[in-house]
Amino acid sequence: VEAVLAPTRAEPGTLADLITPAAVVDLDVMHANLDRMQAYASDHGLSLRPHTKTHKSSRIAEEQLSRGAVGVTVATLREAEVMSRVATDILLAYPPVGAHKLARLLALPAGVRITVAADSLEVLRPLADAAKNAEKTVGVLVELDVGMRRVGVASPQTAVTLARFVADAPALEYRGVMFYPGHIRERVDEQGPAVTRLDDELQRTLDALTDAGLPPGIVSGGSTPAANASHRVHGMTEMRPGTYIFNDRTTAVVGACAWEECAYTILATVVSTAVPGQAVVDAGAKALAREELKGTDAPGFGALLDRPEVIVRALSEEHGILDLLGSDWRPEVGERVRVVPNHVCVSVNLQPHVFGARGDRIVEVWEVEARGWG
Amino acid sequence: VEAVLAPTRAEPGTLADLITPAAVVDLDVMHANLDRMQAYASDHGLSLRPHTKTHKSSRIAEEQLSRGAVGVTVATLREAEVMSRVATDILLAYPPVGAHKLARLLALPAGVRITVAADSLEVLRPLADAAKNAEKTVGVLVELDVGMRRVGVASPQTAVTLARFVADAPALEYRGVMFYPGHIRERVDEQGPAVTRLDDELQRTLDALTDAGLPPGIVSGGSTPAANASHRVHGMTEMRPGTYIFNDRTTAVVGACAWEECAYTILATVVSTAVPGQAVVDAGAKALAREELKGTDAPGFGALLDRPEVIVRALSEEHGILDLLGSDWRPEVGERVRVVPNHVCVSVNLQPHVFGARGDRIVEVWEVEARGWG
Repeated sequence: VEAVLAPTRAEPGTLADLITPAAVVDLDVMHANLDRMQAYASDHGLSLRPHTKTHKSSRIAEEQLSRGAVGVTVATLREAEVMSRVATDILLAYPPVGAHKLARLLALPAGVRITVAADSLEVLRPLADAAKNAEKTVGVLVELDVGMRRVGVASPQTAVTLARFVADAPALEYRGVMFYPGHIRERVDEQGPAVTRLDDELQRTLDALTDAGLPPGIVSGGSTPAANASHRVHGMTEMRPGTYIFNDRTTAVVGACAWEECAYTILATVVSTAVPGQAVVDAGAKALAREELKGTDAPGFGALLDRPEVIVRALSEEHGILDLLGSDWRPEVGERVRVVPNHVCVSVNLQPHVFGARGDRIVEVWEVEARGWG
Repeated sequence: VEAVLAPTRAEPGTLADLITPAAVVDLDVMHANLDRMQAYASDHGLSLRPHTKTHKSSRIAEEQLSRGAVGVTVATLREAEVMSRVATDILLAYPPVGAHKLARLLALPAGVRITVAADSLEVLRPLADAAKNAEKTVGVLVELDVGMRRVGVASPQTAVTLARFVADAPALEYRGVMFYPGHIRERVDEQGPAVTRLDDELQRTLDALTDAGLPPGIVSGGSTPAANASHRVHGMTEMRPGTYIFNDRTTAVVGACAWEECAYTILATVVSTAVPGQAVVDAGAKALAREELKGTDAPGFGALLDRPEVIVRALSEEHGILDLLGSDWRPEVGERVRVVPNHVCVSVNLQPHVFGARGDRIVEVWEVEARGWG
């Protein structure tokens, strides 16, 4: 930990000791976010399998598992390797393509129950062969497209074909289906029609699988913006939100959290006020990440935690341009601010480590262990 | 090096051994890019001080210094610390604000000639005090705004005020002025009016400084898109392009390089073709970075090196959606592609390391040493 801290702060203690830009998590807010989502899942009889792409830290995954998460979700082999230090049930919600990735998947510790999402026989055939050769059993969820049009099988018939292949493959185990409703970015109070459409698309596939004698044991869905609609989707057994642990400006703008429930900020310093009407902070695209808001036409790449009316209007690599035109606030060079990014997952991925704070006091630091590597 | 390689490729050798996504640089193209920019600078009597934010590697900075660069440019203290391993002349083209950053600046090795850019007395006063207390001399370039409206002093009078303060401060040394023409993203063949406007803005300040008895020794400018217009800016002595070493889709689209001069690609694997009209690769926003093209209305976040008509239409964190509608090419799951990102500097910043290749053969790997840390 000392080696991690050394170049970043002179003396441990408070936020004032951090060299900016720095990622800071309010631990009380994070713990409340964790408790709230686990309570929602438990109240509705849903399994919670958080997506760890958001934090990429085994230390933080432990917080989720200790509260009742049934396992974790990962997107990369690197994330799977890191999470296998603390999790015994891992869903790789991404097709492992190529001999190297299959080898790494099958080299995960023996005690880890592995499930993989797949949407084609081109992915499933080599997976079945590799699992058989390794004398391991790999679970499979058939990935469905329920409206996002990114990945996932498009028809109930294709879902049945894949499920049948999995059920018949000796080293694979058919565990059910999964989907990602990433297209639902409407405000939470306007999600009625979108959730109904999703439910309709899903039911046709669930019916087809059941008619074919392949009823899914697991029906896994859920993103943070749609998380609280999970109980309205018939047949869902599991949810996989990621962002909810920290939240971000998108989550708040779509009404899926309150602004005060944003736990993650980039601490930044004002470095220039030379151009009238704006202030420049030392958090740019390499700290905040350049992500437009989705599901809304609100501009900007982030907003100040304490002054949400002040947005980051533009980004360079190391410059964030704060728009002061909608505010009476006129900061001085050297003043510090905390910026809530639009999309927390990609901002975390830019950080070597994250500082955990209670108020102004830094009480811990964790490495973003699983970034990079594929 | 072995520790770096281990999780990424099974056996060293060729591109086929890499686990995707992976950053690959064609070394022959990179060396030609380095030679070409150094030749331009030398031919026009300009000093070349490359911005190392693009590669963040001391190993690669050595390639620039050995060809005749007068020193390097950095944006962060971390970059300064990394580059001080190989460079003895460093320009921090960013205001160092706060006691911690000043301490790190003044802790750079004694043999390093340091110059800092500043656009306010709020930055210069603490810098002057800290340098005096450390018994060091720090050079200063007054940063001018010549049209980008990001940072930099807006008027010739303010430039004179800052230059006078620097000239009078015992521990500071007035070395000249710098500007960054990041607003010039027009195609190279249409830059006439933009360069003329920049030249006009600059001349007023240079005249004012000369009239005040503070003629700048260094007039430092230059970005990659505007680099080849540097000899048309009167009084310029130095250029600071960064991107030119690798180039990217933006550089090519604005006509500042040929497509074949793009040295950096993200090697990616097709993981899904389930949705008609598109193919999904395993390089998303966490490998390519989400950057719109500037200075053009061309869509997409990157394009295939071998099929530039195939663009990355959309990005998720780990998914890149290739638009196949403009192409007859229909890839299969498992096929590999090389993607040229829109903005190489932010893509490099996402990589733990970069593989140097000659053709399909990997001949070296270097760490992206200076990412993160501020």
